[in-house]
Amino acid sequence: MPPRYSQLGSIQGPSDIARLMALALERPDLLSLAAGFTDSETLPVDAVSAAARALEADPKAYREALQYGSNRGRPLLRRAIAERLRRQDGVDDDEEGPSEDQLLVLNGSQQALYLALQSLCDPGDLVLVEAPTYFVFLETLRGLGLRAVTMPVDACGSIDPEGLEALLDDLEGRGEKTRLKAAYFVSYYANPTGRSIPWDNKTAVAAILSRKAPGLAIIEDAAYRDLNYEKPWPAPSFLRLPEDAPLHVLYTGTLTKPFATGLKVGYAACSDEDWRGRLLSMKGQHDFGTAHFAQALLELAVGQGAFARQLELLRRTYRSKRDVLLAAIEKPLAALGWQWEVPEGGLYLWLTAPEGVSTGFESALGKRCLEEGVFYVPGLLCYGNRERDDGVRLSYASLDEAALAEAGRRFARAAESL
Amino acid sequence: MPPRYSQLGSIQGPSDIARLMALALERPDLLSLAAGFTDSETLPVDAVSAAARALEADPKAYREALQYGSNRGRPLLRRAIAERLRRQDGVDDDEEGPSEDQLLVLNGSQQALYLALQSLCDPGDLVLVEAPTYFVFLETLRGLGLRAVTMPVDACGSIDPEGLEALLDDLEGRGEKTRLKAAYFVSYYANPTGRSIPWDNKTAVAAILSRKAPGLAIIEDAAYRDLNYEKPWPAPSFLRLPEDAPLHVLYTGTLTKPFATGLKVGYAACSDEDWRGRLLSMKGQHDFGTAHFAQALLELAVGQGAFARQLELLRRTYRSKRDVLLAAIEKPLAALGWQWEVPEGGLYLWLTAPEGVSTGFESALGKRCLEEGVFYVPGLLCYGNRERDDGVRLSYASLDEAALAEAGRRFARAAESL
Repeated sequence: MPPRYSQLGSIQGPSDIARLMALALERPDLLSLAAGFTDSETLPVDAVSAAARALEADPKAYREALQYGSNRGRPLLRRAIAERLRRQDGVDDDEEGPSEDQLLVLNGSQQALYLALQSLCDPGDLVLVEAPTYFVFLETLRGLGLRAVTMPVDACGSIDPEGLEALLDDLEGRGEKTRLKAAYFVSYYANPTGRSIPWDNKTAVAAILSRKAPGLAIIEDAAYRDLNYEKPWPAPSFLRLPEDAPLHVLYTGTLTKPFATGLKVGYAACSDEDWRGRLLSMKGQHDFGTAHFAQALLELAVGQGAFARQLELLRRTYRSKRDVLLAAIEKPLAALGWQWEVPEGGLYLWLTAPEGVSTGFESALGKRCLEEGVFYVPGLLCYGNRERDDGVRLSYASLDEAALAEAGRRFARAAESL
Repeated sequence: MPPRYSQLGSIQGPSDIARLMALALERPDLLSLAAGFTDSETLPVDAVSAAARALEADPKAYREALQYGSNRGRPLLRRAIAERLRRQDGVDDDEEGPSEDQLLVLNGSQQALYLALQSLCDPGDLVLVEAPTYFVFLETLRGLGLRAVTMPVDACGSIDPEGLEALLDDLEGRGEKTRLKAAYFVSYYANPTGRSIPWDNKTAVAAILSRKAPGLAIIEDAAYRDLNYEKPWPAPSFLRLPEDAPLHVLYTGTLTKPFATGLKVGYAACSDEDWRGRLLSMKGQHDFGTAHFAQALLELAVGQGAFARQLELLRRTYRSKRDVLLAAIEKPLAALGWQWEVPEGGLYLWLTAPEGVSTGFESALGKRCLEEGVFYVPGLLCYGNRERDDGVRLSYASLDEAALAEAGRRFARAAESL
């Protein structure tokens, strides 16, 4: 007799991520353009060591870091995050804006996304997502019994305001609008597209949501914001919407994706005090606080400038890797009619296959790629309702440049062989 | 317009823990016998430093520790935990028993408790708990919309088998037994009582649950198992129930409560493959994996013996603190008719007040204690339905011995003044 599961327990199933990871384990000969791992060579051993040694110099501080912290997170770290966020959003010193009180430190930004959904959505509820969007978020929706509603995106990758309005009207017509609880945006160098959302698109979208779905929560995932190659993407975050916009914003970020993923410290800024309190209460039940030692190391790395230096290194590293991958594929793929935009930040290149070419696990392309010894994330996984199967996400973060070039050539050969 | 919360989001409220923590912040003059913090002086700075330096000696291993790990946890760490657990449970090499495949590494053992409840229970479902029990678990039940059902406990602190049987019959008579999903036991040097469950009581309870509630899940919280003062508590875990017992067992433990709480690494052993898969799937949605760096440090600390040495130090430390606290209170409290058992492990002393004395936040005792400059956890918080208000949990873990003696004297003076 199996355990008697809850509604959520009973809908858990094998995940797409697990499938990709199993493939990586079963076929160590494959070069992975699928993995979401970051570049291993540049992981900041020296910076983390230096932070640990700085702690050693002050045994009292070291002991304090090895003790429990608060559920909300270390005050100095929250202050440092708030200050970075204010600078990134162009908030003047005398302006209202993110403060340490509005910040929660979390066990990776994934926890922020989970808590946001859990606090807002009951099974069956609806969440607006971009097309395509972060596939782990879609898995999280499924795991919570929620339904994704795909927002229309125009040819430039912006959310189409008229299409969004029509979509909301349609939901209303079908009596479903009351089930709509949140809209999710990956707004800087997105996973999987590398795209960023311009400010005028953010304000246009917010205006429609304010009018058609007042009270809606905006969950803004800024995990890749720091990984711009040339200059920061100019649009501020949704936190900068006018205060009278009847929308609630949770902005989520990570200190460790662009530093040392193994430390796993994320954060969220939430300007709504009531919502923040509920998120904190649920966080307390999940784990009553993010590992304090990792927070202390990051506080030092941010405070001593090592975090900023690491960002500079990563920006050069990933830009160079992007170029290596593009050099390996652009001629053959362009000749075949594949399309892409050149990402200006982040870790991903998003390809659109020529008409008639599918990219799913079982497609001819998928099979040819495995024969060539390379794999990728099928675009299908990145659509809320699996609407399209002509996308390919290539991650250029984890392979070294020689392997990346080889992986690109293998992918191109597979595409050419169709 | 506030966000439109989910059912779970809308039931979140101020927690008892938050109330206790706010009290600690507002009144820094108070000596806290309430805090669940561990002893700060003995936090293993040298052991963690040594582990970090051992990583430094191998930059490849260091980089690997700073990269993402798997959702399930580091293989060598899982193996080390499985081996410890087999030794503790007296499992022979050629016997079936916990294996690395059955282990999940988690963000503290609290995450194991949360995932277990989330996978099994829908709002309104029932969970059996001891009386008294761990109050954070009760908060977690409330946060998930679940109802605690208090198991009867006899004068020796064992679960009363006849009373349990009658309770289950009563649930059945009220048509509620189908809502019963799990039974929760803090089985070694419990929070809050310091009690451990004898093996014959475990088997008696399991026999009744098997017969009356087949398919039920047992959640065994062994957070304090390692903190025995003299010798390990002789009862093996519920994992050692006969294989044909129609119960599912999730055993949860922590590597960091008895080492360095700031590293926050817990674990769970689950012999049911299907349940384990669902727990892992949900864990993936929560955070896709516990901080890898902390796991690597613990793997080294366990492998190099530092973890075992730290346990020896903590056992001496907490036994000595127990004695200091008892010395400060036993004469005056015994004279007043207070009762307690002397804990043989763990971090807590549980007192029962003489008849007519309440111990709640607003009680005369509570108020007198604040005037004296000391506070504690009111027993009321530790009962699933707040059935009794004559208990007091005193934590002797976090204060140093001088402060502990003073806190004990203050508590005794408050009790004497009633």
